[in-house]
Amino acid sequence: MYNRVALIGLGLIASSMFWAMKRAGVAGEVTGYARSDATRQTARDIGLCDRVCDTAAEACEGADLVVLCVPVGAMGDVAAEIRPVLAPGATVSDVGSVKRAVIEAVGPHIPEGVHFIPAHPLAGTEQSGPTSGFAELFDNRWNLIVPVPGSDEAAIERLERFWQALGANTERMDADHHDLVLAVTSHTPHLIAYTMVGVADDLRRVTDSEVIKYSAAGFRDFTRIAASDPTMWRDVFLTNKDATLEILGRFTEELFALQRAIRMGDGDHLHEYFTHTRAIRRGIIEAGQDTDAPDFGRKPKRDA
Amino acid sequence: MYNRVALIGLGLIASSMFWAMKRAGVAGEVTGYARSDATRQTARDIGLCDRVCDTAAEACEGADLVVLCVPVGAMGDVAAEIRPVLAPGATVSDVGSVKRAVIEAVGPHIPEGVHFIPAHPLAGTEQSGPTSGFAELFDNRWNLIVPVPGSDEAAIERLERFWQALGANTERMDADHHDLVLAVTSHTPHLIAYTMVGVADDLRRVTDSEVIKYSAAGFRDFTRIAASDPTMWRDVFLTNKDATLEILGRFTEELFALQRAIRMGDGDHLHEYFTHTRAIRRGIIEAGQDTDAPDFGRKPKRDA
Repeated sequence: MYNRVALIGLGLIASSMFWAMKRAGVAGEVTGYARSDATRQTARDIGLCDRVCDTAAEACEGADLVVLCVPVGAMGDVAAEIRPVLAPGATVSDVGSVKRAVIEAVGPHIPEGVHFIPAHPLAGTEQSGPTSGFAELFDNRWNLIVPVPGSDEAAIERLERFWQALGANTERMDADHHDLVLAVTSHTPHLIAYTMVGVADDLRRVTDSEVIKYSAAGFRDFTRIAASDPTMWRDVFLTNKDATLEILGRFTEELFALQRAIRMGDGDHLHEYFTHTRAIRRGIIEAGQDTDAPDFGRKPKRDA
Repeated sequence: MYNRVALIGLGLIASSMFWAMKRAGVAGEVTGYARSDATRQTARDIGLCDRVCDTAAEACEGADLVVLCVPVGAMGDVAAEIRPVLAPGATVSDVGSVKRAVIEAVGPHIPEGVHFIPAHPLAGTEQSGPTSGFAELFDNRWNLIVPVPGSDEAAIERLERFWQALGANTERMDADHHDLVLAVTSHTPHLIAYTMVGVADDLRRVTDSEVIKYSAAGFRDFTRIAASDPTMWRDVFLTNKDATLEILGRFTEELFALQRAIRMGDGDHLHEYFTHTRAIRRGIIEAGQDTDAPDFGRKPKRDA
């Protein structure tokens, strides 16, 4: 589907893309680059990428698809660095969690004749780094393709077929709507999870070891997403500031209403609210976006 | 270990207790009662309990262990109802998520010579009702035993051995500390999850179907705990009001600090905060209270 794919940044998403490309047989040579020596060495040790290069430009030379897999805040610099080697007809894409900021940072560096097609695969785990990837990560997950004005239709369709071969469903979306949808389904939930875990860690009257021991009562679900990569998430909040702050405002308003219902002893309000939220869960199970195994199918360990 | 165990209320916890008792062989006859006809019929259909009774008093007659498994708000009425048949030497316990309120509601109905030993198994799933139970629910989970002043030591130890035979670890805790610890590890996280799901459901510019489709980006983890039983959770918040409001206050304070960091573009503050919260996750994995399988070991369905 592409003769040479260059992966810039070798974390969870890039490494999963590599294994998914190998599974699907959709790429000729896959080159890779990571800024840190240690990451490049790990990649070589585990056979991640057909060729690991010591500069981003070297990895991109001759590539017909370049995928930027670095934190959103680093995308602009990387684009500037690879600009000289981008050949006409090549496609540059990315996997960043924010799209408007990536378009603004990367767009100006894209040479005439090169196709720039931002994208965002909605898939991930709480783990990060070159060893965390696996071929199935994108299976039945959505990849939002965010074409910019003037994007070439044939190049977009080629990228869509590529992601479908990696297991994903694709859909096109406008950048600003993408950033709002993700503020709801991802960015605000992550911030709230980080906050809750931070609060628990910071209380004097309840110890960390109590929080850890008794986490199965609900708290542990928050710790999973609050264990995500700190650099990636710092950049997400800094670059999707407006939409995140808007949803946070709505969240706080709603939380205060529930808080007031608790204070006033308004059980009907609470019961009605809690009944309503069950329906969304059912929709997610039916859409195949989560497991209906009780408790995520967790198997307790007897010997732990 | 007990000759006759009565389970009052036949939801997730009681049904799991029944299957765990059968697995362990620690109870003679197990009787059960549920307020709804339909639940009692389902219990009879699936063989839940050796004998399903039509009144709570009938189920408790001759029992040497009675476990109240109804929502916290219903415990007092049930205790009043079974009071006449409680025999000296019997133990009355419960599985409620709040302990001070249960002690206040149930305690006055306990006759002289009957042991009242509140308890709270920290285990659950997002599912509820008589068909949702399974024998492994309590394996390697904690059960907090909350003796009241004057509780008989031998009766406490017997109840602890019983729960250990069901797979749980036990620990004793004071009622007020229990309610605070649970406000941190369970009650506040649940309220926040309910709030986030409610906000997502209520936005005009992002549709429910978008929220559902794109939930894998983080949101779906919140929907699991926000799918828990509404009546149970209404009662939790109404009866653990003070501790929940205290932790919510801390949460809001912290959330505002992070919100301010986003608004001001203070990346260092965010990065530091997000790095810190990773450590708690590691502690939970090491304590055997969650799986370290990426993404909870979710297996994407190709055909969903």
